[in-house]
Amino acid sequence: MELKQVTHIDNVRLSDDGRAVRILDQSLLPNETIYLELQTPEELYEAIATLRVRGAPAIGIFAGYALYVLALQAKTTSYADFLAECQKNRDYLNSSRPTAVNLRHMLDRVLAVVQSMPCADISAIQDAMGQMAKAIHEEDIAMCTAISEYGLSLVKAGDGILTHCNAGPLATSRYGTGLGPLFLAQERGIPLHAFCDETRPLLQGARLTAYELQRAGIDCTLICDNMASLVMKQGKINACFVGCDRVARNGDTANKIGTSGVAILAKHYGIPFYVLGPSSTIDFTCPDGDHIPIELRDGAEIKEKFFSKPSSLPEVKCYNPAFDVTDHELITAIVTEKGICYPPFAESFAKLFPGKGAKA
Amino acid sequence: MELKQVTHIDNVRLSDDGRAVRILDQSLLPNETIYLELQTPEELYEAIATLRVRGAPAIGIFAGYALYVLALQAKTTSYADFLAECQKNRDYLNSSRPTAVNLRHMLDRVLAVVQSMPCADISAIQDAMGQMAKAIHEEDIAMCTAISEYGLSLVKAGDGILTHCNAGPLATSRYGTGLGPLFLAQERGIPLHAFCDETRPLLQGARLTAYELQRAGIDCTLICDNMASLVMKQGKINACFVGCDRVARNGDTANKIGTSGVAILAKHYGIPFYVLGPSSTIDFTCPDGDHIPIELRDGAEIKEKFFSKPSSLPEVKCYNPAFDVTDHELITAIVTEKGICYPPFAESFAKLFPGKGAKA
Repeated sequence: MELKQVTHIDNVRLSDDGRAVRILDQSLLPNETIYLELQTPEELYEAIATLRVRGAPAIGIFAGYALYVLALQAKTTSYADFLAECQKNRDYLNSSRPTAVNLRHMLDRVLAVVQSMPCADISAIQDAMGQMAKAIHEEDIAMCTAISEYGLSLVKAGDGILTHCNAGPLATSRYGTGLGPLFLAQERGIPLHAFCDETRPLLQGARLTAYELQRAGIDCTLICDNMASLVMKQGKINACFVGCDRVARNGDTANKIGTSGVAILAKHYGIPFYVLGPSSTIDFTCPDGDHIPIELRDGAEIKEKFFSKPSSLPEVKCYNPAFDVTDHELITAIVTEKGICYPPFAESFAKLFPGKGAKA
Repeated sequence: MELKQVTHIDNVRLSDDGRAVRILDQSLLPNETIYLELQTPEELYEAIATLRVRGAPAIGIFAGYALYVLALQAKTTSYADFLAECQKNRDYLNSSRPTAVNLRHMLDRVLAVVQSMPCADISAIQDAMGQMAKAIHEEDIAMCTAISEYGLSLVKAGDGILTHCNAGPLATSRYGTGLGPLFLAQERGIPLHAFCDETRPLLQGARLTAYELQRAGIDCTLICDNMASLVMKQGKINACFVGCDRVARNGDTANKIGTSGVAILAKHYGIPFYVLGPSSTIDFTCPDGDHIPIELRDGAEIKEKFFSKPSSLPEVKCYNPAFDVTDHELITAIVTEKGICYPPFAESFAKLFPGKGAKA
């Protein structure tokens, strides 16, 4: 087996001098590849708010480093003042995307370090905050690596993989989740071919997924969402890999709009359909997909955004749901960092996550 | 039943003075509604070549009027010279879209009038050409009306109808084929609600179908292609209506890319899927869909056309098939101007079209 050098995208990390957060500005992709070094509270806030950094895991990693970088700038030697300043920074960064649960969670993990060291020197607290931020990053890499390993075990050399939306390194770290097996295969010299749904209306497949795969040297082909049926019929697809936003305890899975359609096509053509994501995505308090609300977004995303001229009359109504729910009966397996869950999912979840499964 | 006044789109007709062809310039829709009066050979040729007029039936109607309008400009009194000039105009117009079979067929019907009247005055021949051009137009209106009547019998007041691509008045005359039942329902005060797939990559659903429906006052909602699964799941769709480019004698149907995916979703959700088109679309020499070639088009249509910036990296490969084939097993019925054909289609075609069916 020939090992390949894959240049992973450095979406979020500390700058070389350790005093700024360095990001790839995702809002300019794929037409411009610009790295930014962010240091002020305003710069860090704006990067989250304007989607220069996006994807729940990537935002979490970014937030950890951001709170650390801001803490380095504290001029006080008083613990109370330092804690107050860290809390203020935490609240400010947290307000950049109010509904991002992972953002708050990771900020609180770094803030908890400060709260746990009331008798330490400021510099020692700063060091410990930096260690926690790095740990959050490394945990995500380890989780993505484990998901990718399990996912890769489900396909073989030469397979064609259909992807929808973006669950790659840009949204997470290193390998990504839904796309992880493709990057891991590339490192190991296992040839796979990816078909990327462009993923209307926001084109994450065209802008981000195809960008990541192409930059890593992975053979990929961009298609419009409505072409998936034909490429499946032509025998070009051996498996579908998608990410997930929320998984109910019966296996019903909310993901980017259009995912349920891909799953129905896959079932029709007898192609396995795999959902890949961290176990934290499984919501054991949610019994099934009917309990997952669907976010409705502005019709301008369909008619205007990205286009040089509007695609339809101004008075034409649009319906623009951001997600749909894929019925658990359409899912071949759900791949987590702890292992592969097969149907019935309620049982396989309970077995793999005994503590959490018991809550269900 | 309250009858409604529906203002039908005048996509192609003679100008008021009868000496030019008047068209709605489809290449500017939906942002500009511009009517053009075309009279010179170059103007008429250019209108077909640059898709100012599009859709096989609409091009056929246009071609008939165009040959007539050019014949009016003849300055000769010699039959031989007049015939030669008409033949020259026929060849020139026919070269505007070399693969458009209907274009050639309709030009030849009007030219045959000239060939059949060698002893008549030029003015009498010109009159007869005009009559033939009008007959071609009226035949198409009658055919669309019949298809629409049969289609309307398949739905009921309040139904939601999913459409894909554009098989409406712009591509044909008056009612259209796939969209015909919606316009006829509107005239009769029967409320239907249309969901229009935007139909990537060329956005015919957003640009043309939503335009036609909205202008006629029909309740319509634009969605991205990948949202069809969700609206079906939500119970918003009672039937799917699509047009067709070519139907094999077993019922396999080639239509705009994405049509087969809509049919698979409809089957999954138990929603009837109807193909509507003139019986001339049924190709009795074609045994099944495997014998229908799929046109591949430029990837720039996916990555660049309509966008203000490219949606993906320049080096990303695209696969851009213009059509797909919907398996006959996914089709509830095929609606023609002669009647509704149910499976098995080979049998229902043979019954409805006994002469042609026998050839199969």
